[in-house]
Amino acid sequence: MTTVSSTTATSVPYRVANLGLAEAGRHQIRLAENEMPGLMALREEFGPTQPLAGARIMGSLHMTVQTAVLIETLVALGAQVRWVSCNIFSTQDEAAAAVVVGPTGTVEAPAGVPVFAWKGETLEEYWWCTDRAFDWSTEAAASGASFIGPNMILDDGGDATMLVHKGVEFEAEGRVPDASAADSEEFAIVLDTLRDSLINDPTRWTRISQDIKGVSEETTTGVHRLYELAAQGELIFPAINVNDSVTKSKFDNKYGIRHSLPDGLNRATDVLMGGKVAFVVGYGDVGKGAAEALRGQGARVIVAEVDPICALQAAMDGFQVARIDSVVGEVDIWVTGTGNVNVIGVDDILAMKHLAIIANVGHFDNEIDMAGLAKLEGAEKVEIKPQVHEWRLPNGRSVLVLSEGRLMNLGNATGHPSFVMSNSFTNQVLAQIELYATPEKYPVGVYVLPKHLDEKVARLHLDALGVELTTLRPDQAAYIGVSVDGPYKVDHYRY
Amino acid sequence: MTTVSSTTATSVPYRVANLGLAEAGRHQIRLAENEMPGLMALREEFGPTQPLAGARIMGSLHMTVQTAVLIETLVALGAQVRWVSCNIFSTQDEAAAAVVVGPTGTVEAPAGVPVFAWKGETLEEYWWCTDRAFDWSTEAAASGASFIGPNMILDDGGDATMLVHKGVEFEAEGRVPDASAADSEEFAIVLDTLRDSLINDPTRWTRISQDIKGVSEETTTGVHRLYELAAQGELIFPAINVNDSVTKSKFDNKYGIRHSLPDGLNRATDVLMGGKVAFVVGYGDVGKGAAEALRGQGARVIVAEVDPICALQAAMDGFQVARIDSVVGEVDIWVTGTGNVNVIGVDDILAMKHLAIIANVGHFDNEIDMAGLAKLEGAEKVEIKPQVHEWRLPNGRSVLVLSEGRLMNLGNATGHPSFVMSNSFTNQVLAQIELYATPEKYPVGVYVLPKHLDEKVARLHLDALGVELTTLRPDQAAYIGVSVDGPYKVDHYRY
Amino acid sequence: MTTVSSTTATSVPYRVANLGLAEAGRHQIRLAENEMPGLMALREEFGPTQPLAGARIMGSLHMTVQTAVLIETLVALGAQVRWVSCNIFSTQDEAAAAVVVGPTGTVEAPAGVPVFAWKGETLEEYWWCTDRAFDWSTEAAASGASFIGPNMILDDGGDATMLVHKGVEFEAEGRVPDASAADSEEFAIVLDTLRDSLINDPTRWTRISQDIKGVSEETTTGVHRLYELAAQGELIFPAINVNDSVTKSKFDNKYGIRHSLPDGLNRATDVLMGGKVAFVVGYGDVGKGAAEALRGQGARVIVAEVDPICALQAAMDGFQVARIDSVVGEVDIWVTGTGNVNVIGVDDILAMKHLAIIANVGHFDNEIDMAGLAKLEGAEKVEIKPQVHEWRLPNGRSVLVLSEGRLMNLGNATGHPSFVMSNSFTNQVLAQIELYATPEKYPVGVYVLPKHLDEKVARLHLDALGVELTTLRPDQAAYIGVSVDGPYKVDHYRY
Amino acid sequence: MTTVSSTTATSVPYRVANLGLAEAGRHQIRLAENEMPGLMALREEFGPTQPLAGARIMGSLHMTVQTAVLIETLVALGAQVRWVSCNIFSTQDEAAAAVVVGPTGTVEAPAGVPVFAWKGETLEEYWWCTDRAFDWSTEAAASGASFIGPNMILDDGGDATMLVHKGVEFEAEGRVPDASAADSEEFAIVLDTLRDSLINDPTRWTRISQDIKGVSEETTTGVHRLYELAAQGELIFPAINVNDSVTKSKFDNKYGIRHSLPDGLNRATDVLMGGKVAFVVGYGDVGKGAAEALRGQGARVIVAEVDPICALQAAMDGFQVARIDSVVGEVDIWVTGTGNVNVIGVDDILAMKHLAIIANVGHFDNEIDMAGLAKLEGAEKVEIKPQVHEWRLPNGRSVLVLSEGRLMNLGNATGHPSFVMSNSFTNQVLAQIELYATPEKYPVGVYVLPKHLDEKVARLHLDALGVELTTLRPDQAAYIGVSVDGPYKVDHYRY
Repeated sequence: MTTVSSTTATSVPYRVANLGLAEAGRHQIRLAENEMPGLMALREEFGPTQPLAGARIMGSLHMTVQTAVLIETLVALGAQVRWVSCNIFSTQDEAAAAVVVGPTGTVEAPAGVPVFAWKGETLEEYWWCTDRAFDWSTEAAASGASFIGPNMILDDGGDATMLVHKGVEFEAEGRVPDASAADSEEFAIVLDTLRDSLINDPTRWTRISQDIKGVSEETTTGVHRLYELAAQGELIFPAINVNDSVTKSKFDNKYGIRHSLPDGLNRATDVLMGGKVAFVVGYGDVGKGAAEALRGQGARVIVAEVDPICALQAAMDGFQVARIDSVVGEVDIWVTGTGNVNVIGVDDILAMKHLAIIANVGHFDNEIDMAGLAKLEGAEKVEIKPQVHEWRLPNGRSVLVLSEGRLMNLGNATGHPSFVMSNSFTNQVLAQIELYATPEKYPVGVYVLPKHLDEKVARLHLDALGVELTTLRPDQAAYIGVSVDGPYKVDHYRY
Repeated sequence: MTTVSSTTATSVPYRVANLGLAEAGRHQIRLAENEMPGLMALREEFGPTQPLAGARIMGSLHMTVQTAVLIETLVALGAQVRWVSCNIFSTQDEAAAAVVVGPTGTVEAPAGVPVFAWKGETLEEYWWCTDRAFDWSTEAAASGASFIGPNMILDDGGDATMLVHKGVEFEAEGRVPDASAADSEEFAIVLDTLRDSLINDPTRWTRISQDIKGVSEETTTGVHRLYELAAQGELIFPAINVNDSVTKSKFDNKYGIRHSLPDGLNRATDVLMGGKVAFVVGYGDVGKGAAEALRGQGARVIVAEVDPICALQAAMDGFQVARIDSVVGEVDIWVTGTGNVNVIGVDDILAMKHLAIIANVGHFDNEIDMAGLAKLEGAEKVEIKPQVHEWRLPNGRSVLVLSEGRLMNLGNATGHPSFVMSNSFTNQVLAQIELYATPEKYPVGVYVLPKHLDEKVARLHLDALGVELTTLRPDQAAYIGVSVDGPYKVDHYRY
Repeated sequence: MTTVSSTTATSVPYRVANLGLAEAGRHQIRLAENEMPGLMALREEFGPTQPLAGARIMGSLHMTVQTAVLIETLVALGAQVRWVSCNIFSTQDEAAAAVVVGPTGTVEAPAGVPVFAWKGETLEEYWWCTDRAFDWSTEAAASGASFIGPNMILDDGGDATMLVHKGVEFEAEGRVPDASAADSEEFAIVLDTLRDSLINDPTRWTRISQDIKGVSEETTTGVHRLYELAAQGELIFPAINVNDSVTKSKFDNKYGIRHSLPDGLNRATDVLMGGKVAFVVGYGDVGKGAAEALRGQGARVIVAEVDPICALQAAMDGFQVARIDSVVGEVDIWVTGTGNVNVIGVDDILAMKHLAIIANVGHFDNEIDMAGLAKLEGAEKVEIKPQVHEWRLPNGRSVLVLSEGRLMNLGNATGHPSFVMSNSFTNQVLAQIELYATPEKYPVGVYVLPKHLDEKVARLHLDALGVELTTLRPDQAAYIGVSVDGPYKVDHYRY
Repeated sequence: MTTVSSTTATSVPYRVANLGLAEAGRHQIRLAENEMPGLMALREEFGPTQPLAGARIMGSLHMTVQTAVLIETLVALGAQVRWVSCNIFSTQDEAAAAVVVGPTGTVEAPAGVPVFAWKGETLEEYWWCTDRAFDWSTEAAASGASFIGPNMILDDGGDATMLVHKGVEFEAEGRVPDASAADSEEFAIVLDTLRDSLINDPTRWTRISQDIKGVSEETTTGVHRLYELAAQGELIFPAINVNDSVTKSKFDNKYGIRHSLPDGLNRATDVLMGGKVAFVVGYGDVGKGAAEALRGQGARVIVAEVDPICALQAAMDGFQVARIDSVVGEVDIWVTGTGNVNVIGVDDILAMKHLAIIANVGHFDNEIDMAGLAKLEGAEKVEIKPQVHEWRLPNGRSVLVLSEGRLMNLGNATGHPSFVMSNSFTNQVLAQIELYATPEKYPVGVYVLPKHLDEKVARLHLDALGVELTTLRPDQAAYIGVSVDGPYKVDHYRY
């Protein structure tokens, strides 16, 4: 049924059970290519010179149709790739199947990329998949090497990077802590995974880490982890913070959510947004996109913020800014986009309107206190349909929780659309090229892409939208002290 | 393949193939009830007095979850009901199944309403279903009558009303014209249906028509047909034009499309609307809703209009107003909402951008010249997924046509959301009560609901949105010459 | 102090005090002509045939630059005109001066139209002016007639029409009631005016009324009075309700207010709207325009409504709908647009935030209880600048009242902009032509303009905005049952 | 008439000719204080400790009502102040008069601050005023010092800072270059000013510069000059770049323009924006605010950009992005907001629509090629009213140029509103305190305010808008690695 291996199929890491799935995925990839002009332009520009020849990329990022175009772009630039999703619900099975088969392969003779991902993984399966994507023994066998691992990571949320760092740490200590030390159910599974690894091959992660030339990281959360590692002197390899490219954070986070939040709400609930009261927790880029989308559908939007600058922006943009408890009983749709923990707690949920909808587009499922809800005496979880659950509360009311508190734009819809992801992923590819091809520019540390590459990403997306760019005259460039070709702004410019 | 049944149906025209389907539908109906406060309020207000006791309603309207709540409201007010969809693609099978089983029935012992509808009917099946819903022999048998038909019609698009009128006409003439006289493939099937009927029972439609106390009609198109019939003196029974209630035309048409157009685009294509050029043909209520939704998602919207007043409104609302041929090569997304014919022709399609998306939210599939496209030499139709087809054109480009040119908000999404439909359907129920319970007020002719009922529909939807209505003081009511309780506006007020 | 004159005015009721004023007005009229394509097109179309030759029009409508273009259009079509403003604050003195001088005249030899209006009239002066505009003795003398009055009225708010009707009534009764019978200070002045007239010429109004072929009325309020007169059988001459042309009510009321409300707020207070809480009382066309403008400037808008349909529209458009007392302490900017009385009362004002702004864009100054405020013990009125008053309240807080509660878009700004007024005034001119040139079509009663003229008004404004209108093909016109040239919609269509 | 000295009145530096002017200004200042909660909060917080005691601030910033509240805040914190405007048209005379009189003074006994500014200065007067504000001989005399100058500069656009730097440079060289070396008419006047100074006191600027502890600079343009000086090693004293505080650049530039652009257009032209085509040159913060305001009024907005990132943002926000020459004949309203030179040239102007409006909200009058227009053979300039000129072009068409190409939001309206300026000016005051009270933190160089002060500025403006700020729980602060009290974001966060 799925497009991926079973745990028992050690030597057959993946298989495609379903011909139609791969074909459907290929159709969608073909259409997505039309919407991803940045990636297609990179194939044209860099295909001849193969700057990623020799790169062995372990990718951990939602296995969607758009990611398929990313993967095939990396391959077109010379890389070998293995892939996992970074979220248990976000895989589009047809995309995974098509990538495995490859654009020129067949189901019988796949010529694509190993992918370990399916929609609806358990947490155990998730970490098993991640571990598999670090296992390049098939490639090693093919090349006659005794051992090879990946030499690049392309990460989203930092799970792959974390696994390497923890693996190295535990190998150095010679032991993995008890699961009881885990601060979450999920981390206990990580520990189990690494404990097995330590038993099987006590230097595996150390060897892997030594080969890795760098990681490019997609998200706020993953970037935050990287800066912490760097600050503590524990970062093992250089990292490019793709998230903070303008063409990522100001596009993916804002315009992507503007698209995919209402899409997910619609597919999950079919509930009219017009006339409803929506509450957006957090007014960063994600919250800004969410608020704009909801207003665009005629909802009345209330915003919560902890940062006075963002709170003032929300007010100036015409939104009411309130604390949850001030308006909890009036709200029809709850949206979280903070990257923080327990921003909606069980007490908040108990005070909500009957059948209020709770949707997280921030990052982890701990933005909403799902763990607390699961422990709530008398609460009952009823599946309405996959990724849509009615939680019947002891007070007689219910709430609808989407994607079990995880990213609903991925779990209930198909994530950000291709065009937005083309921006993010063009940054990713440029970051991989930078780290792999010019490692001398990146000692261990965390970097953002230079502004001229950020501008290049934007430039590659203009024609598709019919945008006519104005060209500076030399006298104008001189007047503001820039080159005619850019970069056009100081580094601290905020856009 | 069919989704529904009733154990009492001697000829077994339908059956429930799938237990889970009915259960899933019931979950959705329960959630929809929370979004349809108007209908639920009518159950509360009129349940005790059963104003529809004795009514036998033949309903022809998209068989969705929302329609399920409408049907069960009619039943709660005393009516007997048989139902068909008015569109071959618009049925939600789980809703149909749940209605057949009924809120208190089981799959083994259904206690609901006979429904003849499933997603993806052929045209032959469609008209067979419609004919079945006029066949009340089961109910006749149960009541011991030799013959009964429906005594009320609830119609959407006028197909049920047309069938009765044509049936009566042909019975009077004693013959049904040749199919060759049909102006469309579909009308040939209608003729076949009526020819069979004439052979089997040459006075069936005449008898049916004599019992019918009236029809309430949902849409612009159906209403247009009714006014034509009335103008020609051919209308057989009174009709209430539900479409032109303010709470229908200004809500369903505008706010419904605002919701369901982007929903359908997303489910069909996952294409980012932001930054794209969208072209909306027609700036009536449907076009206004479409344009607002697309702008709310960051698209640049261009509008076409033939009516100078609507064209000026579009300009004043900030939209470019252009003819198709002026901008045809720049447009990414085409939306039709005119109710007119061939507003996008084959020549237009041949001039479009590669992979331009064509979406109809007007009414019939002839808004776009699908017939012409089907005949185009060298054109090839490739199914990307159900209701999404790539038409490869002889010029080497492709376009994506949604729902084969039919209503894509129904075919690619789930139609208008419950809250909007609650407004429309509350009008429908009030119209059925008016026609059935006070026939003396409605000699044969076409009527709109009196304004106080239109205001009542709105009033029943305010609490759910947290709207606080201000009450006129008597001195204020006197000052503007209205009653404190309304109606508040002159009949020609435009809202 | 007064701004206008004509050397032919024997009783010298007005004079031009200021040469520069007339020149400045002429500049502005010339620019306004560029923004009033409808009126300019009528000059071109009807100038040769002079359909208003012989018409003697008494106009009572805000004496602005735009009205100057209207007046000169009436003259260009053959009419003789006398004019007053219909509001004591709304005259733009330079426009009045320029109209008196006329496009081809000079200050020394004015060749324009007698205008009796200046910014900041007293109520006594206002009614004196109105009376003067009914006095055509100068014109009578010039033509050798013993007596002539106007034979057409162009009215705004109905004051001119009311004066004739009351005059006729009192002449029939042979007496004018005591001022003590007046329900307002202003009506006492009307009675005084008519009492003087009865003494001087006891059949003057009766004679005037017999000549009048009709009135075209601009506003909701005036139209309401006309329908009341007609319903009571007291209407003396036919009336065309210009207000309910789509191109008037849906343009002037909505788009005009969208423009002039923020303009007036800015000129009066310079207060940032962004981030503020604005409360719009009434969500008719005026309220819709106000709410859109305030949202467009980043305000958070709350709406109050008594009509459940309009209330539901407000909610669906994303606005909070609340009663005044629910939120009175949170609101920074109050806007009234109801046409009703005392919608903001003294108690409301006492509960407002310090320095809350109160702005009326509805109609009379009784929308806000200015009379009650004037009587409030301990309240003090401080002029900040003309038309901006701080009312210091006994509770220690203040409010800012604009234009003394009268129409602030006229008192604090310059009223609706030329382009909007071109729509309204093109309707006015067409209505004058209809009533004067084809009186047989209009027996005594109240009419709206036929739809084809309404569409014509729109059509005349498209080119200036670069709008490309699409033309129906004959097959499309036939399909929807209209003429290719329109009208395109049924009469009850709501736009 | 004006509020300021004449060139002959060396010992009487200012006088108030008009009592009403000062009183009117005081009313407006009192209302503005209600809209400037940040400044009022600083008076409360820092009034007792007088952190600016001993500071002698030379301020060069538009002398508006808002600046009056800034000046009086600086005084309330202990500073002595002398002030000039930084733009020849931007002074509000009543504000200047009121500041001179002071909150507690009278016209006869002014107790305020010396202000050298009036609306409509010549360039010679402008630089004379600036020179006067550097002349603290009155204060020196009062304190018995032989010489004192200012020890702080508060600058907008950098003119004051430039004058000191040029003065020092020329004093070092012992000569001032010939006026023929000037690259503009204005710089020739600067040279004249400094030449006079060199003759009268050849070490004046050197002595002044040695006392100056720092400058806080308001604008993009001024900041750009500072970074250039610093890069060339020529900066004499430390500078704080107030412009790049988030609460300045993202508020003043964006929300200020959103308010004041339509305000200026309305006051200048009364032209309807709805339905018109507006072209915004530049999509930085200023352009974003302009585009939002125009769209909010129903205009169709087209944007031009040279930076591909900003161009992509404009497209994603739904705007057409085009080059001027592609659409020049369709545009009704032109707005420049680039900070660059000749972005609208004479050739562009010659291709424009008749009576197109040209409005600059960027910075200098060279954004539009006013110099080229002045030299255009056959062009004629007609004053419609002050700051509004019709340029009759040799091709028979005209354009309307606002404020002679200078900042029209200041010249045609009253600049940014108080609330926005409260954000900017709270940054200014904090910057003055930082530089004056903790000079050890700021060696010569250019700095932005630390983020915690930026957040403080925002925080001081929330209550006035009814914003409820959410407080981080300690576990949440720890989770994202910040203090509960902020700062909440990394330095490169873009908001």
